[in-house]
Amino acid sequence: MSGLVLHNYFRSSTSYRVRIALKMKGLDYDYVAHHLRHGGQRSAEFLAVNPQGLVPALVLEDGTMLSQSLAICEYLDEIHPEPPLLPADPLGRARVRMVGQMIGCDIHPVNNLRILTMLRSRFGADDAAVAEWFRHWVDETFQPLEAILASDGKAGRFCHGDSPTLADLCIVAQVANNGRFGVDMSRYPTIGRIYEACMEIPAFAEAAPGKQPDAE
Amino acid sequence: MSGLVLHNYFRSSTSYRVRIALKMKGLDYDYVAHHLRHGGQRSAEFLAVNPQGLVPALVLEDGTMLSQSLAICEYLDEIHPEPPLLPADPLGRARVRMVGQMIGCDIHPVNNLRILTMLRSRFGADDAAVAEWFRHWVDETFQPLEAILASDGKAGRFCHGDSPTLADLCIVAQVANNGRFGVDMSRYPTIGRIYEACMEIPAFAEAAPGKQPDAE
Repeated sequence: MSGLVLHNYFRSSTSYRVRIALKMKGLDYDYVAHHLRHGGQRSAEFLAVNPQGLVPALVLEDGTMLSQSLAICEYLDEIHPEPPLLPADPLGRARVRMVGQMIGCDIHPVNNLRILTMLRSRFGADDAAVAEWFRHWVDETFQPLEAILASDGKAGRFCHGDSPTLADLCIVAQVANNGRFGVDMSRYPTIGRIYEACMEIPAFAEAAPGKQPDAE
Repeated sequence: MSGLVLHNYFRSSTSYRVRIALKMKGLDYDYVAHHLRHGGQRSAEFLAVNPQGLVPALVLEDGTMLSQSLAICEYLDEIHPEPPLLPADPLGRARVRMVGQMIGCDIHPVNNLRILTMLRSRFGADDAAVAEWFRHWVDETFQPLEAILASDGKAGRFCHGDSPTLADLCIVAQVANNGRFGVDMSRYPTIGRIYEACMEIPAFAEAAPGKQPDAE
């Protein structure tokens, strides 16, 4: 028993990243589901765990709460270094973090459920407008990301060489999310083949939304 | 001469974070300004530097381009460890990264100029609606951040103890940005006093938007 408790939601792509990291490191955890569409993460009980009311939140054995998926993954990598989620050299680490943050900062937050809900409630956006918004921001980042991965000579089987890194966790979670909004992945062949390579790894496949206990 | 070239914009809060890190580390750099409101970052010349067309982008002496402000700051911290931007212990590092990402993922991206511009063009948002959007997302994160900083016993003069960290870089850049949209900082007294403490440090003050060569 690792004593870890992961507060998460099967469909949350940031939760998906952390699930992959936990499984890559071979760590057991208790799975606590919060249904985002029903506002479950805004319950008083969960706000007492994470005042920000967002998943994922990882509670350690001593009760310390960590939120923010990329910070959680780096913590797990520091405490359980094998297999590594970051390369050993600083430039490689910077490149992996850069790719992770291109998705983690420039796609996911602006396409998050709370933003899409606000577009509907405040600006009257309908399903088509919401889907167009989602695809627009994916494309704004996936186009240059595809160009970088296809041309800078650093990608191998995965984003950075031939071992999966933090960057691949973000790619996989984003690509899985894209499917719900009709993103045409044929525009991003390198990203697509990296996604497929990742999904052959049990940790990635087992962490997928459809495999979680709260999956619908 | 460090040979570093920082592509940035005086008002960009992500650029501001990197300027503070460079100045804390005592690193010289060439300042190349791209005027975001005039689309300067979308020029063919800049896209050849950073395919994502976003500032900040730091070009190293060997021509390597790094983007994503938090990745850049961590790279600088790994190459030039003094003074450190992260604590030595993994839990402390996780907490600092968490606070940084609360701002870097949950506030800045959704309030970025390109998002506000899209709200205007696609949904007809006027100045008042844009400002309300901005303040809403600041409050969604600053309220729980204030609670965490005020109550978890880890903050000192700065976000994490008595030395400035990556978390403080993000706080300062966000608070500076808030001023343009009428955020009432009296709601966040701990964040406010940390901002004031930071601004007494020359690296923070000299990196401020108003001190840059392209300031208006």
